[in-house]
Amino acid sequence: MRHFHRHLTRSFTAVALACTLLVAAPASQAQAPQLPPPDATNPVTLQLMQGFPPPPDKLVRLANTLKYPNVRWAAQHLRELGPTATVWRGAAAPSALPAAPRALPDTLAFADGKGAPTTLADWQKATYTDALLVLHRGRVVYERYHIGMQPQQPHVLWSMSKSLVGLLVTELIQEGTIDANAPIPRYLPELASSAWADATVQQTLDMTTGVKYAENFADPTSGVFQYLAAAGLQPAPPGSNLAKSMAEHLPTVQKEGEHGTAFAYKSVDSEVLGWLLQRVTGKSYATLLSERIWSRLGTQEDAYVFADANGGQATSVGVNATLRDLGRLGEMLRSNGRFNGQQIVSPATIAELRKGADPALFSKAPGTAMRAGYSYHNQWWVPHDADGSFEAKGLMGQHIHINPAAELVVVKLSSHPVPNTAFTHALDRQAFAALAKAVR
Amino acid sequence: MRHFHRHLTRSFTAVALACTLLVAAPASQAQAPQLPPPDATNPVTLQLMQGFPPPPDKLVRLANTLKYPNVRWAAQHLRELGPTATVWRGAAAPSALPAAPRALPDTLAFADGKGAPTTLADWQKATYTDALLVLHRGRVVYERYHIGMQPQQPHVLWSMSKSLVGLLVTELIQEGTIDANAPIPRYLPELASSAWADATVQQTLDMTTGVKYAENFADPTSGVFQYLAAAGLQPAPPGSNLAKSMAEHLPTVQKEGEHGTAFAYKSVDSEVLGWLLQRVTGKSYATLLSERIWSRLGTQEDAYVFADANGGQATSVGVNATLRDLGRLGEMLRSNGRFNGQQIVSPATIAELRKGADPALFSKAPGTAMRAGYSYHNQWWVPHDADGSFEAKGLMGQHIHINPAAELVVVKLSSHPVPNTAFTHALDRQAFAALAKAVR
Repeated sequence: MRHFHRHLTRSFTAVALACTLLVAAPASQAQAPQLPPPDATNPVTLQLMQGFPPPPDKLVRLANTLKYPNVRWAAQHLRELGPTATVWRGAAAPSALPAAPRALPDTLAFADGKGAPTTLADWQKATYTDALLVLHRGRVVYERYHIGMQPQQPHVLWSMSKSLVGLLVTELIQEGTIDANAPIPRYLPELASSAWADATVQQTLDMTTGVKYAENFADPTSGVFQYLAAAGLQPAPPGSNLAKSMAEHLPTVQKEGEHGTAFAYKSVDSEVLGWLLQRVTGKSYATLLSERIWSRLGTQEDAYVFADANGGQATSVGVNATLRDLGRLGEMLRSNGRFNGQQIVSPATIAELRKGADPALFSKAPGTAMRAGYSYHNQWWVPHDADGSFEAKGLMGQHIHINPAAELVVVKLSSHPVPNTAFTHALDRQAFAALAKAVR
Repeated sequence: MRHFHRHLTRSFTAVALACTLLVAAPASQAQAPQLPPPDATNPVTLQLMQGFPPPPDKLVRLANTLKYPNVRWAAQHLRELGPTATVWRGAAAPSALPAAPRALPDTLAFADGKGAPTTLADWQKATYTDALLVLHRGRVVYERYHIGMQPQQPHVLWSMSKSLVGLLVTELIQEGTIDANAPIPRYLPELASSAWADATVQQTLDMTTGVKYAENFADPTSGVFQYLAAAGLQPAPPGSNLAKSMAEHLPTVQKEGEHGTAFAYKSVDSEVLGWLLQRVTGKSYATLLSERIWSRLGTQEDAYVFADANGGQATSVGVNATLRDLGRLGEMLRSNGRFNGQQIVSPATIAELRKGADPALFSKAPGTAMRAGYSYHNQWWVPHDADGSFEAKGLMGQHIHINPAAELVVVKLSSHPVPNTAFTHALDRQAFAALAKAVR
């Protein structure tokens, strides 16, 4: 245990970074005082992982992935750092993703929300963007790749992975395979003595479970350290006896407070749902995603999921996919579940995702003030705006923003130095509004 | 060091299995006295890695991969056990691999070489086959998958990976980028004090280097343990200070005997060539394979390469690819480098691979008696038979057999309990001859 503490002290910076990006950090943490200039964090010009072998100071490994800016390289190369499972694209030809007759220019101007003008190009640079895709009525109006990212490269989704879990659970509820009001142990008896003993599927979907799971990275006993080690996303400190897989970890997580009374963002809820999906269907998460979504969208590339030490798949944060394939996903969601000539998920599922939950429960969580009016429902973020928007979000700036009224889909993949997407939330909302206005 | 010895004793069986499969074991080891019946080693019926999570006794991890029959599961799932890099198939549609008008039957009969009759189906079962593809004039005359393997699943090639390295080095020699007669340190100064200090590229290609590298798995100090740990293919014993990457390991390997006087099979020669390729081109091995071969063949699926702890790619044994894509590769080789409407490698490269080396040097190596008349040239096995055949081979029964006279390509992927392919060599030769006769 002494060794464990020593290790934690040493890797404090790295782990601190990790944690806020997995969770909705308090607003006070959202503004980092000194950020590295975006140009100084480009892994290509920094020559990270270049050379055979790369020099020791340019090596990015799992243990130093979260030391900025290493994560800018790792976000495009996660499979090179550990075990992964294929989400097969299927054998059919990719579906069309045609260019629109008129593209949006880099110079598209809008107000940054603080009284200054900005542009589409400047917004991307200011938010450490790796790739950006904008679709209007299913046609590409804007597509850019930065810092060496290639169109065929899967990029880590971090917590946007949760929204894929939510989509599949919602669909299985619609199909009658899962009962939203059932307690979790009906499907996962392993959790009968855990926090989820009396939590329903719906509470877990909405993250209103009462779970003792502080994401406090200043405290070495905080649940987040156990979570990272169990997911295989960070090496367990040598000598520690942390659970080495999610299936070992989740049954040890205990209840705190009451279920259903307040939103609190926690990745373990999503891992429970991922486990539930696999138990109910008898299929691995990667297989499910392939059979139900990826192969039917007509994606261009395989996606993949990061795996833990027992081969368990990191359903809450571990999916990696290309920009254009996420565009296809977004377009399917915008089109009430229809894409590539077929109904991929039911319209009722999309309606359920879009309807959101109670913003009053959402606002009880610390750090949600800047997202006033939002709710979190079935693992999707819902702004409750006039356009009926709904969103997937992941740490360091992953976004799928769907605006049905404007017939708009925006996919933004980023690797910014402040983990929480709250860092750029106000500016991103300005940009999404400007894009909606530009295509209307 | 004490701990290291204890570990080795414990994992003796697993490692013993590992080693012979990477090398050409003496003939005396080729016959295992008691083999498990093929039906008793099917990972699907054994329920290996099934369930969420799999029960502890059904878990396959890198550390127990080589404990038979775990490797039968692992051969189809290597990316789920560690870091890997994508060999991208490219963006174009897959090339055609049409069915022949008449397929070969499972009942195709031939003599097993020991005086008994056998069939195509029985040969596959007796040799623990995972998948088999037979092409005649580029058309599929036979295609089967066993023990749960799917057509889209990459299968580990083990030492067939070496033949891909040899193909690329030969092509770069033909192009004038690499000088076959240059000493290795001209390109890799890191090896100036190693076994390769005065070895030429050609000697390394033909494995006639004199390298102190016993593949003796009864001796814990044998080079093969260092090789496995450096490649990332087996965890380094806890407490050992073995090199953790190939780039650290190769410079420590020392000379023994004289270069150019005898063949001796050793994976480290192939790793030197893989390093050479990357140094000379400035591209990773996975990128080179994609750009020069995989994307141009019009493959159906991405391939991938296993990576070591520093992201170095295991060029000698770490490539994984699908059956049909290996069929495309074999057909390109049979067709003097032409496939998918383009010249992919030069006819001179194919001619060089086919010409073989001096069988007299080959026969000096122990265990080569049953392959009398063969030579090993530019990482390809050449039987010097009347049909001009040439072959790639990998442990546990990986084969690409190309018979230009019969216009035949056979790809066989297996996971048999005796590592060395010598185990089934005589029977495989009978089968290849029967297939050539059947299509003629």
